[in-house]
Amino acid sequence: MFELKKTADSSKARLGTLTTDHGEIDTPIFMPVGTLATVKAVKQNDLINKIKAQIILGNTYHLYLRPGCDIIENAGGLHPFMSWDRPILTDSGGYQVFSLSDNRELTEEGAEFKSHLDGSKHMFTPESVVDIQRTLGSDIMMVLDECPPHPCSYEYAKESMELTHRWEKRGRDAFLNTDPKYGHKQAQFGIVQGGTFEDLRIESAKRVTDMDFEGIAIGGLSVGEPTDLMYEMTDLNTDYLPENKPRYLMGVGKPANLLHCIARGVDMFDCVLPTRNARNGQIFTENGYINISNAKWKNHNEPLDPNFPSDLCSKYKMSYIHHLFRNNELLGLELASLHNLIFYLSLMDEVKERIANDTFHNWYEDKAELLNTKI
Amino acid sequence: MFELKKTADSSKARLGTLTTDHGEIDTPIFMPVGTLATVKAVKQNDLINKIKAQIILGNTYHLYLRPGCDIIENAGGLHPFMSWDRPILTDSGGYQVFSLSDNRELTEEGAEFKSHLDGSKHMFTPESVVDIQRTLGSDIMMVLDECPPHPCSYEYAKESMELTHRWEKRGRDAFLNTDPKYGHKQAQFGIVQGGTFEDLRIESAKRVTDMDFEGIAIGGLSVGEPTDLMYEMTDLNTDYLPENKPRYLMGVGKPANLLHCIARGVDMFDCVLPTRNARNGQIFTENGYINISNAKWKNHNEPLDPNFPSDLCSKYKMSYIHHLFRNNELLGLELASLHNLIFYLSLMDEVKERIANDTFHNWYEDKAELLNTKI
Ligand SMILES: [Zn+2]
Ligand SMILES: [Zn+2]
Repeated sequence: MFELKKTADSSKARLGTLTTDHGEIDTPIFMPVGTLATVKAVKQNDLINKIKAQIILGNTYHLYLRPGCDIIENAGGLHPFMSWDRPILTDSGGYQVFSLSDNRELTEEGAEFKSHLDGSKHMFTPESVVDIQRTLGSDIMMVLDECPPHPCSYEYAKESMELTHRWEKRGRDAFLNTDPKYGHKQAQFGIVQGGTFEDLRIESAKRVTDMDFEGIAIGGLSVGEPTDLMYEMTDLNTDYLPENKPRYLMGVGKPANLLHCIARGVDMFDCVLPTRNARNGQIFTENGYINISNAKWKNHNEPLDPNFPSDLCSKYKMSYIHHLFRNNELLGLELASLHNLIFYLSLMDEVKERIANDTFHNWYEDKAELLNTKI
Repeated sequence: MFELKKTADSSKARLGTLTTDHGEIDTPIFMPVGTLATVKAVKQNDLINKIKAQIILGNTYHLYLRPGCDIIENAGGLHPFMSWDRPILTDSGGYQVFSLSDNRELTEEGAEFKSHLDGSKHMFTPESVVDIQRTLGSDIMMVLDECPPHPCSYEYAKESMELTHRWEKRGRDAFLNTDPKYGHKQAQFGIVQGGTFEDLRIESAKRVTDMDFEGIAIGGLSVGEPTDLMYEMTDLNTDYLPENKPRYLMGVGKPANLLHCIARGVDMFDCVLPTRNARNGQIFTENGYINISNAKWKNHNEPLDPNFPSDLCSKYKMSYIHHLFRNNELLGLELASLHNLIFYLSLMDEVKERIANDTFHNWYEDKAELLNTKI
């Protein structure tokens, strides 16, 4: 399913192609998050034509609760339910369940939890999340893992990692013993854990590799640890992952984080940041990010960047976008969400071009610093 | 500015063309409301390409407070501020001020009011609302009037009407003695009042006609009176209005109301109903309206009407739209707002076609009844 096309000369950055029955994905790629079967405030048409998204994410925990598996199964799976005929990746639901802290209990069997909506009790097991994702019909499903908090003790991280690998074995068996429901193939990714402990990260990477998943995710990062430590763990992990499998860094991140982690050998990313921050008025640009609600834009009667291919940047005056945000107008949320995702995906395009023509390595660090600047 | 092209044989329905420096408007027309310089949840592109709006509305009261006249003037007027280069009509702000009830005081001079945002004091006079609308730069501005509540006594309605006409005289003078600010022409519409009293409605229509505005609005209706009474007053008013001026029924209404009032000689309408109700899940269709949040759509896995030219109707399953609304997803608000406005404007297209080929009269009453049906 994954073809490695190139590894950069002076960094671990890679070019590859991931093939699914719903289309090809050119890596490195950013995957917009569609928690409840919708990338918030963005139309499916615009995901295709303007954002040029190659794959989007759905959240198993949320979809399992709303609309529920029966509704999605009746619709023929998540693709026809949401009228999206390109690749979809679904997470296992584990991460959301573990965030419920007081409302979940962890056992060898799985994770019991109370719905954040109505308090009803449910159980996710390594096997049940495979079944659920069979029903969702995602092109790529994730195995159930446990994501330890940061900071956590070595002992906790080790035990959690052991549990994760026992669950991954069960999840992989369940995957291999069941069939897709809707006539298109599904792949399953394993997840590396191990907290921020080098030996655990190395051991976890090896054990996940041994289970021969179609792809491997680096989990448990971007959960509050310092950014440099996140880079370090990512760098370490990719050293121990096979060349011929796609690598997915879960829940990352800012534009600068993407560049640094691509340099460390990551192929795939997802994060709610571009859309969530858009709704809070944070707009990413080539020269850093701005907060559109800031008074400095109130009377700024020019477009932000007439050459950038988003309506927010090229069509409207900043004073107008500012006005929309100050008044909580829905149009502001739409334009900003669309813009930030266009920005992320076009950044990935530039990265691919630069890896291809060997100009990535000398470019990405300065670019990352620029993108992290507040304008 | 207005050319009457046809009056139907068996009803008072008319075809006309209203010409402004920002383009022509074929009447009968519905004008989407863009209170704060944005038609809620709808992109300007979609207003043009999908909704095919020929003219939109802005609200003087709201724009005067936010972003304020200075910001709009710096941007070069409302058209460039909101990147909308087609016709705009602005109201006088009077209606919103009178809705503040406890926070406004009426004198001969004008209406003093406290902002609903911060309690600050302001005054609208017949002259100042002309100045404000000069600054907004709308293609059509409205004169300041007083809109009496329903029900109200004959005496109140008569005194209110007299005040309205004194204000209209001052407003017309202010208009004739000032110039547009941005190089395009502006027109001014007068407003008929008189409550629901026949003799006052007739007298008011005659007095507004005498002031020779570029167009005439029928005000003070759709404020709580029975629908039949609204039709009756509209019918009466148009009997006393000149043929060669466009007639605008303010704040109306449901699709069925539009058909009935077009039959009674009205050319222009505005209302927040299609967008506000869209945000509440009410979707208009050729066969009546539905509430998308109703459980009956939960498992309805077909598009509502594959032949209707909106994404909501033709692209998505009803179960998906239902899911979006149940979860307050922004995409639902966008799709529904877009749909309802496409519905209103395409209804106006059908009306024009039917007036042109003399099939309006035998069609509109049954159609209105159908459109008023809950599915
Ligand atoms: Zn498909
Ligand atoms: Zn213009």
